[in-house]
Amino acid sequence: MGKVLRVNMSDLTTRFERLPDRYANMAGRWLTSRIVHDEVPPACHPLGPNNKIVYAAGVVTGTAAPTSGRISIGGKSPLTGTIKETNSGGLAGQKLSRLGIRAIVVEGQPKEKGKYWVLKVNKDGAELLPAADAWLGKGLYAAYPLLLDRFGDKVAVLGIGTAGERLMANAGVCVNDPQNRPSRYAGRGGMGAVMGSKGLKAIVLDDKDGPGVPIANKELFDTGRRKLVEALQTHAVTKPGGGLNTYGTAVLVNIINEAGGFPTRNFREGRFEGAAKISGETIHEVCKKRGGVGMTGHGCSPGCIIKCSNVYPKADGSELVSVQEYESVWSFGAQCGIDDLDVTGELIHLCNDYGLDTIEAGVTIGVAMEAGLAKFGDGKRAIELMREIGKGSPLGHILGNGAESTARVFGVVRCPTVKGQAIPAYDPRAIKGIGITYAISTMGADHTSGYTIAPEMLGVSGKVDQFSVDKADMARNFQYATAFIDATGHCLFIAFAILDIPAGLEGLVEECNGVLGTNWTLNDIGRIGGEIIGIERSFNERAGFTRVHDRLPEFMKHEKLPPHNVVFDVPDETLDKVHAV
Amino acid sequence: MGKVLRVNMSDLTTRFERLPDRYANMAGRWLTSRIVHDEVPPACHPLGPNNKIVYAAGVVTGTAAPTSGRISIGGKSPLTGTIKETNSGGLAGQKLSRLGIRAIVVEGQPKEKGKYWVLKVNKDGAELLPAADAWLGKGLYAAYPLLLDRFGDKVAVLGIGTAGERLMANAGVCVNDPQNRPSRYAGRGGMGAVMGSKGLKAIVLDDKDGPGVPIANKELFDTGRRKLVEALQTHAVTKPGGGLNTYGTAVLVNIINEAGGFPTRNFREGRFEGAAKISGETIHEVCKKRGGVGMTGHGCSPGCIIKCSNVYPKADGSELVSVQEYESVWSFGAQCGIDDLDVTGELIHLCNDYGLDTIEAGVTIGVAMEAGLAKFGDGKRAIELMREIGKGSPLGHILGNGAESTARVFGVVRCPTVKGQAIPAYDPRAIKGIGITYAISTMGADHTSGYTIAPEMLGVSGKVDQFSVDKADMARNFQYATAFIDATGHCLFIAFAILDIPAGLEGLVEECNGVLGTNWTLNDIGRIGGEIIGIERSFNERAGFTRVHDRLPEFMKHEKLPPHNVVFDVPDETLDKVHAV
Repeated sequence: MGKVLRVNMSDLTTRFERLPDRYANMAGRWLTSRIVHDEVPPACHPLGPNNKIVYAAGVVTGTAAPTSGRISIGGKSPLTGTIKETNSGGLAGQKLSRLGIRAIVVEGQPKEKGKYWVLKVNKDGAELLPAADAWLGKGLYAAYPLLLDRFGDKVAVLGIGTAGERLMANAGVCVNDPQNRPSRYAGRGGMGAVMGSKGLKAIVLDDKDGPGVPIANKELFDTGRRKLVEALQTHAVTKPGGGLNTYGTAVLVNIINEAGGFPTRNFREGRFEGAAKISGETIHEVCKKRGGVGMTGHGCSPGCIIKCSNVYPKADGSELVSVQEYESVWSFGAQCGIDDLDVTGELIHLCNDYGLDTIEAGVTIGVAMEAGLAKFGDGKRAIELMREIGKGSPLGHILGNGAESTARVFGVVRCPTVKGQAIPAYDPRAIKGIGITYAISTMGADHTSGYTIAPEMLGVSGKVDQFSVDKADMARNFQYATAFIDATGHCLFIAFAILDIPAGLEGLVEECNGVLGTNWTLNDIGRIGGEIIGIERSFNERAGFTRVHDRLPEFMKHEKLPPHNVVFDVPDETLDKVHAV
Repeated sequence: MGKVLRVNMSDLTTRFERLPDRYANMAGRWLTSRIVHDEVPPACHPLGPNNKIVYAAGVVTGTAAPTSGRISIGGKSPLTGTIKETNSGGLAGQKLSRLGIRAIVVEGQPKEKGKYWVLKVNKDGAELLPAADAWLGKGLYAAYPLLLDRFGDKVAVLGIGTAGERLMANAGVCVNDPQNRPSRYAGRGGMGAVMGSKGLKAIVLDDKDGPGVPIANKELFDTGRRKLVEALQTHAVTKPGGGLNTYGTAVLVNIINEAGGFPTRNFREGRFEGAAKISGETIHEVCKKRGGVGMTGHGCSPGCIIKCSNVYPKADGSELVSVQEYESVWSFGAQCGIDDLDVTGELIHLCNDYGLDTIEAGVTIGVAMEAGLAKFGDGKRAIELMREIGKGSPLGHILGNGAESTARVFGVVRCPTVKGQAIPAYDPRAIKGIGITYAISTMGADHTSGYTIAPEMLGVSGKVDQFSVDKADMARNFQYATAFIDATGHCLFIAFAILDIPAGLEGLVEECNGVLGTNWTLNDIGRIGGEIIGIERSFNERAGFTRVHDRLPEFMKHEKLPPHNVVFDVPDETLDKVHAV
């Protein structure tokens, strides 16, 4: 059995507990949602003393399983008011697992505001240290090197930036990548603000001489692992030299734009005339042309064999930012009417530096443009607006709290959010299944909670018509499968391969059985996924959410999206049917 | 049968309709809530084209019934997301009634943003006129005289200030008082922003040669009216020279402070050391001492025989503001740690000028102080903060959206709101019944939705222990009776007299029967009140509200309020019981 590290920020104590038997096989999202469900009063204030923040890596994280370095972070979200799980690559998940720690639970709140601590965890135990002044109030590109100086450059750092220190609802939790950049994020839902509200600047994980991950059945695990590797290396989307590896996730830009579902200028249009300029193909080309540090096929976490990340160079070949990915080049690009990767790169860099989720931040800038604070397409002004967040000005506080807060403050009605969270880079009016996912997700608009784009756009797991509205079953199945994958610690991108290649799917289950000594079958994927979603919905119900909140923004029901001139016409009854089974 | 004036702001048309039979006897809050319930999609965006704003005077408004000049304004609130009814004195209610108009319903939304119209209504009909540039973007103390120049000084003007033009969720709807000051407000819930979202700067009501209010049974009406007048002129609270007439509503300051329920410095304490300096007694004394225009016993609407308003003078006897009332001197006073009536007067003046609710504005400044934007007690800085709202700066937009929005933007957990609306001047930890009212009100924290302070503090309608928690029945009865009074068009303050003097209560019902030709008995008060609350709760349920929202802020359950060191300990089950009958 693994351990749970419980950290009490009210009295600044830490203690290790045995993982309760009832949580025996839980990990990743399954475990964070379970603990949050069991321990957090659903109606509590997300930034108050009764919320908790829970960190847990997946079932296979820390093993040799491919592309499995995810760490889940859970709690009640200050952005949405719902339960939240957000996961990240980078170095943290594997180190946490290899320390034999199944979860860190941070609770309580220091009496004194504005004081910060760092939680240091290594094989000898855990310790809360006062944060040095030098680590606070500055960008993470400056703070991370100082933290690594202090704690050694072989550690993982889960940290918050000034956005988190200022309790902004769009603050994410940062994780260093293999080159120690502060560039990987458990971004969505404002868990960085929850961490900030606990007075926790960073968690430093040093797994040197740690116990490692126990594997109950090594042979079975290896069998499964090999099948999954084989699938990932075969599938067109995930294989070496495949779409993700060559062009990064922004390979989607041209595809979604072509389909008329690429939200443009705050969801006014579904096709962006500047799409090609911010596409994955262009990213690839610029990296080659400018040279220097520029590269695609960068891995965000050790052991990833998909490697969809990139390092984007400035004109002189020096590093502008890692990573220009689909959601980020869309949110700061098409959503803001900006068609310049040097500008999107600068904006993503600011997000990394301040500690913000790029989707929410970009959608927020688009909403600010809608409010008249800048013209669509004005990259210079977009950068200035983002810098207000870094300054902590009143305007920065507005923007740092996300799209819905910004819309509220400026009286903007066209606000593309669900349950307070910004809608990602697929317009649900043109691609109905993902709209169902946004509406019914337990965490507000979130494409990663059930990525129906796979069949709707990519022909993965079959091909279905983007405009068809009868997708309740599909949306449910994707949510369940996703929740299961989020429990395993694998990156969601393995889904492309395992949805199409049955052996890969078997391999996934065998990996888990190998680690845990369980006898799960393929049927357990839906059972466990359903259980996770059920836990989350139970929390939300007690937090005051009803089917009325499982809806898209009103304007999408009556405002037609060019070029297909479609509204979101999935009946409410279909939305309600998804979880009525 | 009266008429309904329907105003469509999408195509800028007006038309009169016959009041539907099913609404026959409805007026005031009964009618606004009924129309909103029947016509507004509960999940709509409050500032979008599908919300409506409804204006209706009470059953007896426009007759000789005493203290009955109220006009109700209803819609979906941008502050709370619930249904909203907010009512005001001033000149508008009576003129609307005397025009034979039972309700004005404004719907739709102009395509072009930032354009404004004025709706002119007189005996000949209704007309939408483009608002002159001179009326826009300036304070109401400058704009109202221009509107009265244009439309004559015998009209009522229902108008919005710059806060409403800017769609701020704390924008109220202003009504001129008998001296044509822009000083009476249907303040709570942001209906000024809804009016702004419709492109409606003002409604001008000219009742010259209007048909007047038909009275079905004049004799019965007169009998009832005389009984009510007698009660009002007899009861210690409401009689000439009584508490309200002599000292205004701020007569409560010393009483509530003494009881330890006067929220101080953002609800940190229940007693304010500077209370005496902002009390009704001091207001009365200053008005006498400074002379000039200063007066207590001012009537806010023709035919009021209580006259609890005042005109507060500057040191030189010229007018500072009308009116320094209990809620306003508390919100800008104790809530902000300010003990200077010249400062509270200036702050109230700014609310009148910008078009803001004083309760929400003062609580918001207290929350801003909590966030560190000013020190508690710093009146100069409080004025500066309020002026930001007038400027429309980003900070002003934050503050203009109310307390919860401000708390959200600055990460403040101690946010004294229920369903997004600021808690008024009675700390529910020290006075439990009003806490139940706040929690279960259909419109967020609102003392006027069930003023249990009468028995809990004033010995009106019996005397009950302030700390007793078993008050579900009392809270329900007060809500029902209040809803009925809000339907009649009487000021809620008649309740003091009719709760203690049975003949006054009979008189109220006889007045209504006299006007409508109905045969209501005392039992119909509860029936009609219950029906109104039921309508409102049905709307809210379909807007996504559950019992989880019928709760006080979390901090009040665990943070003790001095001097009695009490938390809010009314069980959730009691709250749920109120409307479970």
